[in-house]
Amino acid sequence: MAATPLLVRDIGSFHVGGRIAALTGLPLRERLSSSGGPVHPIDPNGDIVAGQMYVQYVQLAEPKAPAPLLMWHGGGMTGANWETTPDGRPGWQMFFLRAGFDTYVSDAVERGRAGWAPFPQIYPEAPYFRTAKEAWEETFRFGPPGSWHPDPAQRRPHDGLRFPVGCFEAFLAQSVPRWGCNNDLTQRAYDALLQRMPSGAIVLTHSQGGNFGLTAALNAPERVRAVVSLDPSGAPDPEARDAGLLRDVPHLFVWGDFLDRHRFWINTRPGVQRWRDALSDAGCDVTWLDLPAAGIRGNSHALMADDNSDAIAALVLQWLAERHLAGAA
Amino acid sequence: MAATPLLVRDIGSFHVGGRIAALTGLPLRERLSSSGGPVHPIDPNGDIVAGQMYVQYVQLAEPKAPAPLLMWHGGGMTGANWETTPDGRPGWQMFFLRAGFDTYVSDAVERGRAGWAPFPQIYPEAPYFRTAKEAWEETFRFGPPGSWHPDPAQRRPHDGLRFPVGCFEAFLAQSVPRWGCNNDLTQRAYDALLQRMPSGAIVLTHSQGGNFGLTAALNAPERVRAVVSLDPSGAPDPEARDAGLLRDVPHLFVWGDFLDRHRFWINTRPGVQRWRDALSDAGCDVTWLDLPAAGIRGNSHALMADDNSDAIAALVLQWLAERHLAGAA
Repeated sequence: MAATPLLVRDIGSFHVGGRIAALTGLPLRERLSSSGGPVHPIDPNGDIVAGQMYVQYVQLAEPKAPAPLLMWHGGGMTGANWETTPDGRPGWQMFFLRAGFDTYVSDAVERGRAGWAPFPQIYPEAPYFRTAKEAWEETFRFGPPGSWHPDPAQRRPHDGLRFPVGCFEAFLAQSVPRWGCNNDLTQRAYDALLQRMPSGAIVLTHSQGGNFGLTAALNAPERVRAVVSLDPSGAPDPEARDAGLLRDVPHLFVWGDFLDRHRFWINTRPGVQRWRDALSDAGCDVTWLDLPAAGIRGNSHALMADDNSDAIAALVLQWLAERHLAGAA
Repeated sequence: MAATPLLVRDIGSFHVGGRIAALTGLPLRERLSSSGGPVHPIDPNGDIVAGQMYVQYVQLAEPKAPAPLLMWHGGGMTGANWETTPDGRPGWQMFFLRAGFDTYVSDAVERGRAGWAPFPQIYPEAPYFRTAKEAWEETFRFGPPGSWHPDPAQRRPHDGLRFPVGCFEAFLAQSVPRWGCNNDLTQRAYDALLQRMPSGAIVLTHSQGGNFGLTAALNAPERVRAVVSLDPSGAPDPEARDAGLLRDVPHLFVWGDFLDRHRFWINTRPGVQRWRDALSDAGCDVTWLDLPAAGIRGNSHALMADDNSDAIAALVLQWLAERHLAGAA
């Protein structure tokens, strides 16, 4: 059955944040631009742009939601995370477009179409490249520690895992390098993005995007209509920031399964719980949706790619609708 | 006046090409995932995916063109080139969507959402970062050699230049690093993309994308309905490849202004002219559209961002329509 076409007003993009940075003292080089063509001399010294972020929007002709949905990916990933799932199903971007939201999908600083700046000249350190084993066994919780194997037939996923492991390589192909030193730059770019949204926006984040989204709400509570955090890998420190600023900003936390089986998550989740508690104590509207506790088992860290991705998105949509943030049904 | 909404069937993406590559012998590291969070040990050794390309599609509910339009960016850029212009006008992606084409915008290997692989482990050399001076004075032909200045008020563009120089920094922000060593990987990914287009496709390229597009047509003439090359920076060698394979594949070359003022272009264009001559000699359908010779002066190398970008796109559309590749008017 063919779905109803989307009525799209505009598709486009822009970069936000960033500054001119100077490269100096680098040796001259030569560059082959095109196979078989001439070699050109290149002076790599000069001004470049660094710290910018890429934002791609799809604006509907008749959006139903009162504010656009900003979709912020996790570490080592890009906005492609929100598009088609690795096994070829429509992703969350299409889900929320069909639900009547304008979508703004970012590639954070240093990733994807944001570009990146040279190290050690601009970024002080080298990036990390996500390995298959780390993705499988640790960050994305596809299988228990020790279960990764290069031969797909010998990989052992978690019992009941909902990630389509037959498409693991397609998922891994979405990875991009990441740095550990650019959190401040990235936060500034996200904050600048919100300043471009005069009617405010709903911020939907995944993983490393979580702390950026929660902090962006603190930095501009008047611009953030709600924060939805999927498996956030960090949160503001309640000793340093005042959760009471967020009494008008509802927060939804969504958690997948197997969190107590992986060191990264065992070490990471308590910090988010502390911020959740601070929000609750300050009288904010906070929902902590632990999917397994709600009877939905088997979700990996790649919630938006799991085989029940639409069902999870529908829970988010319902939560937004209950707060009058999804428009008419 | 509001434009008519697009009727969109689907928006999505996939990666194509790529292989598993192993990283070995790297020292263990520690990684801070999120500001204020715990530090995690990281083993950077293991399998990664390298050589993949990103492709984002917008499929219309009722496309008019008989084949989709593949849009291949130039060196040091991403698919963002085809989106909104630096001064905020709709770009060529929207132009051709409105004209009834399904669009497939790529980020080539090593760029944008394609991700990139570590050097020197996978890529033998370090990348180049585009400097403002090189972009202004050489590749993009915004001003003559010596005319770049960090102070916008003191930059001296070419007389009659059609690029919106007030938005130069926004344009430079679209830049991403590039390597000189990945042409074969990139060609393979483009070739693989065409194998995913069973009804064939129209290939539209810019700059470094030019040689990839012209070569992709040679590698799979049955899949390529036409090749449109904007300011191509390279072409196949007529001594090595048989232009006669392309008798059923019409070719359009479009050239901007100021080509004889910039060393890169003075050195580069003859190779493309040789391929144009080989195509002509073999009896192919070749159009060489030299815009200044046709009375259209002032176009930079960023034809799709110049202030007459829609007029240039309309010339391309007309050329396609004359070959029954644009559908009903």
